[in-house]
Amino acid sequence: MSDHVYKRVEIVGSSTTSIDDAIRTAIAQCSKTVKNVEWFEVQETRGHVENGQVAHFQVVLKVGFRIEPSA
Amino acid sequence: MSDHVYKRVEIVGSSTTSIDDAIRTAIAQCSKTVKNVEWFEVQETRGHVENGQVAHFQVVLKVGFRIEPSA
Amino acid sequence: MSDHVYKRVEIVGSSTTSIDDAIRTAIAQCSKTVKNVEWFEVQETRGHVENGQVAHFQVVLKVGFRIEPSA
Amino acid sequence: MSDHVYKRVEIVGSSTTSIDDAIRTAIAQCSKTVKNVEWFEVQETRGHVENGQVAHFQVVLKVGFRIEPSA
Amino acid sequence: MSDHVYKRVEIVGSSTTSIDDAIRTAIAQCSKTVKNVEWFEVQETRGHVENGQVAHFQVVLKVGFRIEPSA
Amino acid sequence: MSDHVYKRVEIVGSSTTSIDDAIRTAIAQCSKTVKNVEWFEVQETRGHVENGQVAHFQVVLKVGFRIEPSA
Amino acid sequence: MSDHVYKRVEIVGSSTTSIDDAIRTAIAQCSKTVKNVEWFEVQETRGHVENGQVAHFQVVLKVGFRIEPSA
Amino acid sequence: MSDHVYKRVEIVGSSTTSIDDAIRTAIAQCSKTVKNVEWFEVQETRGHVENGQVAHFQVVLKVGFRIEPSA
Amino acid sequence: MSDHVYKRVEIVGSSTTSIDDAIRTAIAQCSKTVKNVEWFEVQETRGHVENGQVAHFQVVLKVGFRIEPSA
Amino acid sequence: MSDHVYKRVEIVGSSTTSIDDAIRTAIAQCSKTVKNVEWFEVQETRGHVENGQVAHFQVVLKVGFRIEPSA
Amino acid sequence: MSDHVYKRVEIVGSSTTSIDDAIRTAIAQCSKTVKNVEWFEVQETRGHVENGQVAHFQVVLKVGFRIEPSA
Amino acid sequence: MSDHVYKRVEIVGSSTTSIDDAIRTAIAQCSKTVKNVEWFEVQETRGHVENGQVAHFQVVLKVGFRIEPSA
Repeated sequence: MSDHVYKRVEIVGSSTTSIDDAIRTAIAQCSKTVKNVEWFEVQETRGHVENGQVAHFQVVLKVGFRIEPSA
Repeated sequence: MSDHVYKRVEIVGSSTTSIDDAIRTAIAQCSKTVKNVEWFEVQETRGHVENGQVAHFQVVLKVGFRIEPSA
Repeated sequence: MSDHVYKRVEIVGSSTTSIDDAIRTAIAQCSKTVKNVEWFEVQETRGHVENGQVAHFQVVLKVGFRIEPSA
Repeated sequence: MSDHVYKRVEIVGSSTTSIDDAIRTAIAQCSKTVKNVEWFEVQETRGHVENGQVAHFQVVLKVGFRIEPSA
Repeated sequence: MSDHVYKRVEIVGSSTTSIDDAIRTAIAQCSKTVKNVEWFEVQETRGHVENGQVAHFQVVLKVGFRIEPSA
Repeated sequence: MSDHVYKRVEIVGSSTTSIDDAIRTAIAQCSKTVKNVEWFEVQETRGHVENGQVAHFQVVLKVGFRIEPSA
Repeated sequence: MSDHVYKRVEIVGSSTTSIDDAIRTAIAQCSKTVKNVEWFEVQETRGHVENGQVAHFQVVLKVGFRIEPSA
Repeated sequence: MSDHVYKRVEIVGSSTTSIDDAIRTAIAQCSKTVKNVEWFEVQETRGHVENGQVAHFQVVLKVGFRIEPSA
Repeated sequence: MSDHVYKRVEIVGSSTTSIDDAIRTAIAQCSKTVKNVEWFEVQETRGHVENGQVAHFQVVLKVGFRIEPSA
Repeated sequence: MSDHVYKRVEIVGSSTTSIDDAIRTAIAQCSKTVKNVEWFEVQETRGHVENGQVAHFQVVLKVGFRIEPSA
Repeated sequence: MSDHVYKRVEIVGSSTTSIDDAIRTAIAQCSKTVKNVEWFEVQETRGHVENGQVAHFQVVLKVGFRIEPSA
Repeated sequence: MSDHVYKRVEIVGSSTTSIDDAIRTAIAQCSKTVKNVEWFEVQETRGHVENGQVAHFQVVLKVGFRIEPSA
């Protein structure tokens, strides 16, 4: 792990089911386009309400991934 | 959504089951007395411990609702 | 509850399953060595990612317990 | 001003025009139902984007008003 | 305490005497109109100065109270 | 809006005219290269001073946009 | 810009007109007595309300200026 | 109060007696050299311990005063 | 004081009397089991309310003490 | 510098040597793929420990760069 | 790393030489009495001044270590 | 140290060499005009980048000094 450089981006996942699922959805989606994702940090947890019920959970994540040296 | 005014109040939901359930309980209870609830933001997540186990999850939420113009 | 003194320590629980489970694991482990645990406060929620999926949820907690007067 | 008690509530004003206008709108609307409003504090400034342009400015305010002694 | 819902409001107490007194004044005044007040949290401590002396202490509190189920 | 994933990036807009204009400039410029921008959040407001006058307002924004599923 | 030392002070500008104007007023006033003002950072935006309308915008700024080496 | 400019400085008062007294001491001392002090805001409360007892309370204050127009 | 190492722990003191007393109680209690306590920092001030009156003040402190080199 | 737009990204540099070196490494690596980097802001400083010694310093930076108008 | 529990404590290291050295000193000292230290996070950097020069750098760290299951 | 009053000002030191050096430069420069400087606290660490390299480290400090009683 010596002298690696990482990048941290913010993504927002949502789910009608649970906070955990919103995180899993966001990580899975993010990993489709970014390689080497290593960790996440929850920044905010929020959601929408419709008809007096929770309609979606939304979780804002910082996601960290290793930048491969460009040679 | 032009020029609406919203209000944001703080409520605390609790649940013996899960964080998600504490949020759902709080939103459902809040919606009994407040109309037009549109979103929530988690402020704090905490809980009580009894006999070395989690007894309750408690979640502090900001809840936003639209104020209807009083004509 | 008059004039008690409490202590608050930070522990980090992890779980491959859910945030709730990471909290329960941490509290149960903490209670093995500390008596009179009364409450917890979530400080940070984060996790590790492996192969594009959430591998562990990690939750940093402040845990409060009553200090028994040393006589 | 001796020994008065004040209350502070959170409202969100929006405007298609400007941040200042979102604040003025919120204060004017709030004053329709609350007496003795004395000050405000901006908590967050945000907005919606449509078609690549700012559609609304939204300003979250804490609004302080004096509670009249109930006799 | 199972599955109760609480509300948290912000009030500002002032006193010419002391910080403690500003808190007591605010809690006593708040309890005149709100039932089931259970706890407070100090958010800010400030004050006014006149003639080079502290004229008032002002304490901003979050005050939590239990919402009674509306049947 | 079910189960969408969003990304949030930070941009800094500047304007010699006003805070509102710095925000509009940043959003318009950002929308040239990013599709589906939906909201912004002001993080910091600052500026440069020259000859004892405000020369530029600078506003740091978080800008949120929807990530289109890559099929 | 090598090895300069700067100082940062807090000033509060007010305006009956707008947030931008409160900033400009504060910077202009500050520059009357301080040389080499180079930047500002908005700390808080607040205001007074009279008769249900915004009476003054108040902006708390950190203002940075270069200290001239005293020889 | 139209269009005044204020300055805010940080001072630290200490007292062997109480938090309130540390604030009063700081304000009284500050007012010896600064005119037009109007308000204070507590930033931090801390203290020194000697022989297992509180030796001093220390309170960090922001103190605001009106700048008189220099004509 | 050269190259000492300190530790900082969190304790919560309570008092039916005053904030100052809650601090003094916590420090005195902490000093019974920890040597070389040198300073404290107030983190949170809160309390319980019973019958519409302040029943306890609770103060969360960080307490710093010097670690004696283990030879 | 009139009306430029900047972007701010988060990177994490690491170094076995020093905090300064972790920053320099991150900036140099970032500049390989991003043009017009103008400033950085340290967000977090942390590190790994192995065998009771600091193994790596890790520094989380916000890095700002000017976006060239796309014609 | 599955389902481990960690603890996080706060220590303050000091050094007459550099910030890096204050961190190394604190980690080395902490590792004398705590096993399995894995990471640190800088919380505050401060220092004492004597005769117009930096006399000591002081760094407040959170230090994380793995708790071994007590069987 | 009984009942002293201190003042805390913000200065920004810069250095092409290191963070430590930026702090030392700022403290030395500050001590030329202010007597009785006793401590500093790092508020922000940032810097400028030129040609893809760190050109300056900039450190924002709060600097505390004892105010001598004016007789």
